[in-house]
Amino acid sequence: MTEPSLPIQHYYHDDFSWCYGCGTNNASGHHFETRWDGEETVTEYLPRPEHTAIPGFVYGGLLASLVDCHSTGSAALALYRQEGHEPGDGAPVPRCVTASLHVEYLKPTPMGVRLQVRGRIEEISVKKAVVVSQVAAGEQVVATARVVAVRAPQTMTG
Amino acid sequence: MTEPSLPIQHYYHDDFSWCYGCGTNNASGHHFETRWDGEETVTEYLPRPEHTAIPGFVYGGLLASLVDCHSTGSAALALYRQEGHEPGDGAPVPRCVTASLHVEYLKPTPMGVRLQVRGRIEEISVKKAVVVSQVAAGEQVVATARVVAVRAPQTMTG
Repeated sequence: MTEPSLPIQHYYHDDFSWCYGCGTNNASGHHFETRWDGEETVTEYLPRPEHTAIPGFVYGGLLASLVDCHSTGSAALALYRQEGHEPGDGAPVPRCVTASLHVEYLKPTPMGVRLQVRGRIEEISVKKAVVVSQVAAGEQVVATARVVAVRAPQTMTG
Repeated sequence: MTEPSLPIQHYYHDDFSWCYGCGTNNASGHHFETRWDGEETVTEYLPRPEHTAIPGFVYGGLLASLVDCHSTGSAALALYRQEGHEPGDGAPVPRCVTASLHVEYLKPTPMGVRLQVRGRIEEISVKKAVVVSQVAAGEQVVATARVVAVRAPQTMTG
């Protein structure tokens, strides 16, 4: 059995760890964590009771948020691996932002079930990755997503 | 000068007013409000300090959430108007959910600026509307969106 890989968000530079979705420093945020599972990326989350849409079902905006950070995290993992690195090896981790987010909601997502997002890297270049994902609630795929994530521009980090 | 129109979210059935994004009954939520402005729909929101991505810029998941409720609210307004009704006239208001959400992030969205989402109804049928929107931070358009919103299915409301 292999060790589970480490979440990329734990290795973002401290200045870039304030994201409401996945920043380890954001006390109010969701703290999404994204890691490799072989060639796929995985983010899991149990929505809180307030994350409802219509009672009994998860808020679509929360699913979009989960997909958003999962995808920027997946892009960071992929760019990092492309450079020969894995989380924990000490090299600076790229920080990505979302250029395009597309979510298809296939069926209502039940509350009270741990969600799992699984992603694969559809395209990658030096500064961009396209991440295609499925969101599952238990055995049921409830949404699919395609996200274009790019390295954070100088205007954000400079 | 015409009276500003009333937000549709104030007229959702009480059982369907728990949405994390726009439910008037959700104490933890964002309380987005969507109203007509002529033939366009408008939702405004000032992100809270914790809704950050990289410091100084708004979290993309928050923008997606804003677009999500703006669009389901716009669809509800449009279906309601198609039936001859306006918010406040007492007829039951349709409740919509998101089938497809697509957001293009054009540039980083600065924190500390009230955001305005303006939508128009691109297509409408008896049970569905396609809402096309722009998100502006002051004079600057920071994102565009296209959302397919459908009447909440019986499995959610029955």
